[in-house]
Amino acid sequence: MAKENSFVAQIADIETDFAQWYTDVVLKTKLVDYGPVKGTMVIRPYGYAVWENIQKEFNVRFHECGYENAYFPLLIPMSFMTKEAEHVEGFAPEVAVVTHAGGEKLAEPLCIRPTSETIIGTMFGKWIESWRDLPLRENQWANVMRWEKTTRPFLRTSEFLWQEGHSVFGAAEEAEAETQKMLGVYEEFAKTCLSMPVLTGIKTEKEKFAGAVATYGMEAMMHDGKSLQSGTSHYLGQNFSQAFDIKFTDKDGSQKYGYTMSFGVSTRLIGALIMTHGDERGLVMPPVVAPVQAVIVPIAAKKEGVLEACRALKETLCTAGVRVVLDDSDNSPGWKFNEWEMKGVPVRIELGPRDLEAGKMTVARRDTLEKCELTLAGAAEGVKSLLHEIAVHMYDKAKARMESRIVNAESLEGLLDGVNGGNFVRAGWCGCRACEDKVKEFAQATSRVLDKNHTAKTCLVCGKKAVSTVFFARAY
Amino acid sequence: MAKENSFVAQIADIETDFAQWYTDVVLKTKLVDYGPVKGTMVIRPYGYAVWENIQKEFNVRFHECGYENAYFPLLIPMSFMTKEAEHVEGFAPEVAVVTHAGGEKLAEPLCIRPTSETIIGTMFGKWIESWRDLPLRENQWANVMRWEKTTRPFLRTSEFLWQEGHSVFGAAEEAEAETQKMLGVYEEFAKTCLSMPVLTGIKTEKEKFAGAVATYGMEAMMHDGKSLQSGTSHYLGQNFSQAFDIKFTDKDGSQKYGYTMSFGVSTRLIGALIMTHGDERGLVMPPVVAPVQAVIVPIAAKKEGVLEACRALKETLCTAGVRVVLDDSDNSPGWKFNEWEMKGVPVRIELGPRDLEAGKMTVARRDTLEKCELTLAGAAEGVKSLLHEIAVHMYDKAKARMESRIVNAESLEGLLDGVNGGNFVRAGWCGCRACEDKVKEFAQATSRVLDKNHTAKTCLVCGKKAVSTVFFARAY
Repeated sequence: MAKENSFVAQIADIETDFAQWYTDVVLKTKLVDYGPVKGTMVIRPYGYAVWENIQKEFNVRFHECGYENAYFPLLIPMSFMTKEAEHVEGFAPEVAVVTHAGGEKLAEPLCIRPTSETIIGTMFGKWIESWRDLPLRENQWANVMRWEKTTRPFLRTSEFLWQEGHSVFGAAEEAEAETQKMLGVYEEFAKTCLSMPVLTGIKTEKEKFAGAVATYGMEAMMHDGKSLQSGTSHYLGQNFSQAFDIKFTDKDGSQKYGYTMSFGVSTRLIGALIMTHGDERGLVMPPVVAPVQAVIVPIAAKKEGVLEACRALKETLCTAGVRVVLDDSDNSPGWKFNEWEMKGVPVRIELGPRDLEAGKMTVARRDTLEKCELTLAGAAEGVKSLLHEIAVHMYDKAKARMESRIVNAESLEGLLDGVNGGNFVRAGWCGCRACEDKVKEFAQATSRVLDKNHTAKTCLVCGKKAVSTVFFARAY
Repeated sequence: MAKENSFVAQIADIETDFAQWYTDVVLKTKLVDYGPVKGTMVIRPYGYAVWENIQKEFNVRFHECGYENAYFPLLIPMSFMTKEAEHVEGFAPEVAVVTHAGGEKLAEPLCIRPTSETIIGTMFGKWIESWRDLPLRENQWANVMRWEKTTRPFLRTSEFLWQEGHSVFGAAEEAEAETQKMLGVYEEFAKTCLSMPVLTGIKTEKEKFAGAVATYGMEAMMHDGKSLQSGTSHYLGQNFSQAFDIKFTDKDGSQKYGYTMSFGVSTRLIGALIMTHGDERGLVMPPVVAPVQAVIVPIAAKKEGVLEACRALKETLCTAGVRVVLDDSDNSPGWKFNEWEMKGVPVRIELGPRDLEAGKMTVARRDTLEKCELTLAGAAEGVKSLLHEIAVHMYDKAKARMESRIVNAESLEGLLDGVNGGNFVRAGWCGCRACEDKVKEFAQATSRVLDKNHTAKTCLVCGKKAVSTVFFARAY
């Protein structure tokens, strides 16, 4: 029994030491490992498969929205970064700089992209000539680098993988609408593919992207009640089009600057799904992006016909489009149960002589740990429908949890109580930076997004009239 | 007419100025553009779509060979590079170096990966403990950087995209066999997906990968008779396992170093397919990786029912898995024909009132420029089978061309004549570096691969006994 429970024993307790639980889980399930350079990560096959599934799902959605994938260079001349004043102020402290190449000192230092507005803006400026070229929508999947002091795998690393979508429009309203539309795509993706509820809304000036007119974000509640910024969409106005000369000839023959926007999500989403759904046994993978959706564990594998039936079942599920693994290793069933539970595989199928005789299989759900039976004849449909049911249930459960943990506060003390209790705190705000800073100082909480439904009367800090209702939380 | 032929007029003549033809074609078809930093490229959507198709095809093949995708860090400590003596000697002159990050000078300079043997070797060394962990096979799709003096889009750029597969075995023969097996995967891919014939074989000591025991390569003949190295597979012996401590406990309890190998192809393959198949009208895309496999051009689009029929046909082909575009722009059919020909779309479908009446469509092949008719009722099967026929025909044509341009030589003068005539030259070689250097000096040609079928008697330079028969060529 000791051996069979060894996996569980290896993971810190999720309730009392969530930080250690996270580290244990990401390392022991082989999602990720630390890279040799401080702050870097190696995304191992089990983690990278999640990323590939995320990419696949987003590519379909982005394509429907008119985006085409492209690839822009990693290295950006330092002089590009300085063309947009706020942008360079925000990113300069975080960039990694190449000063030497090919055995020589470079005439101009190059920075490794922390984001690509500047280089993509330069190319868009070159490509766009007339209103006929608009709107222009491109997306890239790439690595970016932001030198961080405190890092954690997936959540904050010097190098991470992401997608960044960039588009140009002829009118401000169109770019503004696109910014919100792509935020909506993120929200729908989070719900459908990660079974993850989010809060979406506009960010405060303090929290917006460096160089943006407005940043919209989606925030998800992690197991410890802290918030994780999981995706952002920025309306950039003409800030970048003026800095990078993105001009077009309009129908009336006049020259105009375009309006741009950009949006991005990163490998941080993997951290988000781990910390949203994980439990005391380890990962709980949302079915849509799970690298393995179902694992077949033979029971009494040496009995005649068992392994053959397992192989046939694997083939059936595989053909039906289920990502399935047959664990025919020498380990005991109990050991396998624990291992695959830790890895968060949504559906475990047990198949033994008695099941075969009855023409059924025993199925265990990772989300509820409940068992049920499915007929072997209806295996493909049964498993697919169960996967869907699990995805929906995981979302509903996480949503109910998040909603039960949003509390209102009317004072700093009330807010502190709220975040100490692992809640998001909804409170009025007068709109001034000093009050926002005060919240950070007093409760180590930050404004995450503004509530679209503004109902608060007074600012929780100064008591003046509230111009917005804000979701405050401690954040990763 | 002038306007309709404007595209063709813009491209330099392929026979008299192949270099300019290449530049014209890659820029005007929007495959690629120059990046702001010298030697970098922007891969535009039409080019990136080719790369995505290449990735998709390779992922299937690599998966079948037991490879899993992963992602390793971009930055490698300089000290890692120096652990394998030959490796650092080969790559040090080409690396880009990060010296500052996060506003501070780094304690140790970091290099941007030119290839990842050192960092992947380090991680493999950490992960592998026993013979049970072997073989270990991982692949990554990534950007790499090699600072080059003379660059051309896709063919040689400072930054390029590639895949690098890395594996570890317990026995030398296994790693050796894998090296050749993956070379075989490349050759089959080149044939099936790029319709591109290649010569494969072992490279000479001079041409091998820095740090390898042996390098196998595949070489393709470009339109001008020059060779393009299109993929390499390296047997690394224990060079990297000793440098990076990749050890395992064998079944008998003893500690042993593993045997490693690696293999890679890059965005250079896009240059290869352009220069293998292109003609005086522009690109000729191999069907399997073509971003657009078929374009529908409505004839007399304003006539009743034409556009509707075109849309229905597009839907039919799309459902059948054909990558199809309907060009319903305002340009004239002639203008469209030229544009899509330049872009190399394998199949052009013309659909007008007369076709509709007869229940057929007119189909033009890009490879032969021949026209034929297909029934509308059998559109999906007809187009798919035509695409296959085109792929096979393009391969056969390129193969016949390559074979007709391999000549034998028994002297330096003979070799010079051969390469001047745009041929690969097959000649005997004594095995010494001095004679190999002499060929380069005399004819600006290099040894590409050794012929598996060694028949030459004497070295073309010194006249001594030939130990190998070599394919020499001028190369990109």
